[in-house]
Amino acid sequence: MKKDTPYKIYLSENEMPKDFYNVRADMPVKPASLRNPATGQAMTAADLSPVFCDELIKQELDNDTRYIPIPEEVRDFFAMYRPSPLVRAYCLEEKLDTPAKIFYKFEGNNTSGSHKLNSAIVQAYYAKQQGLKGVTTETGAGQWGTALSMACSYFGLDCKVYMVKVSYEQKPFRREVMRTYGSGVTPSPSETTNVGKAILKEHPGTTGSLGCAISEAVEVAVGSEGYRYVLGSVLNQVLLHQSIIGLETKTALDKYGIKPDMIIGCAGGGSNLGGLISPFMGEKLRGENDYEFIAVEPASCPSFTRGRYAYDFCDTGKVTPLAKMYTLGSGFIPSANHAGGLRFHGMSPVLSELYHEGLMEARAVEQTSVFEAAVEFAKVEGILPAPESSHAIRVAIDEALKCKETGEEKTIVFGLTGTGYFDLTAYQKYNDGEMTDYIPTDEELEAGFATLPDITEK
Amino acid sequence: MKKDTPYKIYLSENEMPKDFYNVRADMPVKPASLRNPATGQAMTAADLSPVFCDELIKQELDNDTRYIPIPEEVRDFFAMYRPSPLVRAYCLEEKLDTPAKIFYKFEGNNTSGSHKLNSAIVQAYYAKQQGLKGVTTETGAGQWGTALSMACSYFGLDCKVYMVKVSYEQKPFRREVMRTYGSGVTPSPSETTNVGKAILKEHPGTTGSLGCAISEAVEVAVGSEGYRYVLGSVLNQVLLHQSIIGLETKTALDKYGIKPDMIIGCAGGGSNLGGLISPFMGEKLRGENDYEFIAVEPASCPSFTRGRYAYDFCDTGKVTPLAKMYTLGSGFIPSANHAGGLRFHGMSPVLSELYHEGLMEARAVEQTSVFEAAVEFAKVEGILPAPESSHAIRVAIDEALKCKETGEEKTIVFGLTGTGYFDLTAYQKYNDGEMTDYIPTDEELEAGFATLPDITEK
Repeated sequence: MKKDTPYKIYLSENEMPKDFYNVRADMPVKPASLRNPATGQAMTAADLSPVFCDELIKQELDNDTRYIPIPEEVRDFFAMYRPSPLVRAYCLEEKLDTPAKIFYKFEGNNTSGSHKLNSAIVQAYYAKQQGLKGVTTETGAGQWGTALSMACSYFGLDCKVYMVKVSYEQKPFRREVMRTYGSGVTPSPSETTNVGKAILKEHPGTTGSLGCAISEAVEVAVGSEGYRYVLGSVLNQVLLHQSIIGLETKTALDKYGIKPDMIIGCAGGGSNLGGLISPFMGEKLRGENDYEFIAVEPASCPSFTRGRYAYDFCDTGKVTPLAKMYTLGSGFIPSANHAGGLRFHGMSPVLSELYHEGLMEARAVEQTSVFEAAVEFAKVEGILPAPESSHAIRVAIDEALKCKETGEEKTIVFGLTGTGYFDLTAYQKYNDGEMTDYIPTDEELEAGFATLPDITEK
Repeated sequence: MKKDTPYKIYLSENEMPKDFYNVRADMPVKPASLRNPATGQAMTAADLSPVFCDELIKQELDNDTRYIPIPEEVRDFFAMYRPSPLVRAYCLEEKLDTPAKIFYKFEGNNTSGSHKLNSAIVQAYYAKQQGLKGVTTETGAGQWGTALSMACSYFGLDCKVYMVKVSYEQKPFRREVMRTYGSGVTPSPSETTNVGKAILKEHPGTTGSLGCAISEAVEVAVGSEGYRYVLGSVLNQVLLHQSIIGLETKTALDKYGIKPDMIIGCAGGGSNLGGLISPFMGEKLRGENDYEFIAVEPASCPSFTRGRYAYDFCDTGKVTPLAKMYTLGSGFIPSANHAGGLRFHGMSPVLSELYHEGLMEARAVEQTSVFEAAVEFAKVEGILPAPESSHAIRVAIDEALKCKETGEEKTIVFGLTGTGYFDLTAYQKYNDGEMTDYIPTDEELEAGFATLPDITEK
């Protein structure tokens, strides 16, 4: 095979980023601040401090500092599993017979199986620095809970995970990884919180929801001495931490003088996509370079492509502050038949603002076509991808096939966020021909929008 | 943290091995040849050709050629997931407070989750070169079957996997990975073979065994036009392919001028350990350098430490040629309570001869202490290890703690063969305090030895 770059571009330890890049510093219009649902006022650091760690609140609210140092202890941890490889998809290119050059940044080579670990370790570090005893969080499919469990175990912090009951029961392996790392995992809703008890009383047979798990995790954090709540996506701080993905990607490409034309990522809460595109978006915002950015979301949960740009709760339990974002309404329930993650009703406020300004585009894809791309990719590139990541694969393949038609030699970079080892029930459904697609009707979307809070922007 | 080498040593593509190293070429006493159980005569290439691919038979019988080129197509495939990282276990060293320097070669960063892919891709390549339609094999826990499925899918070969029925039912996720890669997976014993039918007739409720699955796979290979049988361990050719592990390790250490004192690996059939130590053993055999080698096996299946060096069948069905090896007898049944792999009654003939000559030592460890080491390792080094690999971790930790007592700054290298993502039922048992140990009694061993074939060595 003829090769103009290596299969995988790694960075040496001294090429590794020493600072996170904060794309907000280069945004002429900043993302809207979080608001207090009761007063409609912007949340201050003091408002947020009962819930979040102090240093993380600072990062959350900092729209100005372009580079924020990565603590040495975090860089030591990163060194164990980073840099993640930037892989040239030579075999996929050959299979597609495309003139396009395809690269993917693979974040699945760590035990949490995804990019989530990048932010988990930073959040655990600052919790430890603050002298806390532990943190609480929620998890759905379990990627974030696993990542946080690993990070807390490393720093000797207690970790209480509220896991959506249906996942707790159907994904016992994810649960066991968390327990192996010493976390307490509670199926949500539970009898351990007031909100859990109330929900169980009202809906005795409920299998839980992410919204309910968030509410329980927040209640426990606020009510326990020495605990705070942490979150794996959506927040500005999480995008900041995930900028490590984009920074490594850019350094690796720069080493070979490669400028991508197009950068593609899946988008649920936006942490992976935001992290991957951040340094490239910075160049675009500063007018130094132009890139095409594509967010890929499931047609079953189309926040960008069919949502509204509005203030909304981040959870269905309505206990969080309001964020201005593309949203389907916190009451929107994605179809249960959707296999992967990306089921969140909202979207990162940073990405929402960038999308609103036309600086990136979005596409919605259906899950059977996503799994078709996943299997095609797995067969030639070896890696069995997570369903979430496979949304990006779908569009990368589509774009490469367009290049085949036009003869353009575009350079496409996409984020391969994780592996599908804990998603094999979904693969089985696909292999057995039992997977179906689901696109919400306009009426279903309207029902979701009806749950949007009434807030007058100040 | 003070660091004298990077966390991970990677090799650039031009530092990657271009040849496999055949340790047999440097062995003054060669491993005994395979024998025909009916005649007691050494098996010739012609005898083996109905079962195995021609080029692989050549490699199997070649005790003289020191370096055997890695085909370019295989090197292209290797480039997708190799070099595997050689990791300095700084965090484990710190946790143990040992003066020892610990390195591990991590083979789990590919979708098969283990080192098995290294040989699978070579075997699939030669099957394709020979113009075959496909291959057959057996799999127990599923690592080998997964690896072979990936390899066959890459070269467009059909792959028929006979999976031990109890694993087929209890490890549906492994099965689905194989199906995703296009393999046909049949629970064994099955109605698709004569041997399967006979076993089902005699034992209608049986959940199968590796021995039975081997017999079915061989029957199908021999009886189908354009098919051959392939095997993931024990054979000389497999150790040859796995020498890639040791070659990369040696090149990486040489870059930093590091000479290990001790190399540790788990041993089931011996493919990982044999591959890891090969180039180092070569130096020892040639008198250039001295190293300590330790094979770690489960106390429940102690081929080296309590077995006999004798000719034996490689399978319980007694359809394979005889190999001279350390064995517990093909009729020995390891306790069902053992969690991981390494349940094979025999051992690689190459390693058996080296052990017999006192060139390496062996230790047997109990599984609860193995899982204790696994969890300790997972918490500080991030990676959730496979139960098999954790046998090596156990002894590496033991040795590092000895160094703490003596103050010796030994350099310890061990093989981390794979991840434990598909072994979480075992972790759950350990987490719940329900895991027990099992050491076979002398009577049980005698019952196994009673199944050894009667053969007079020529």
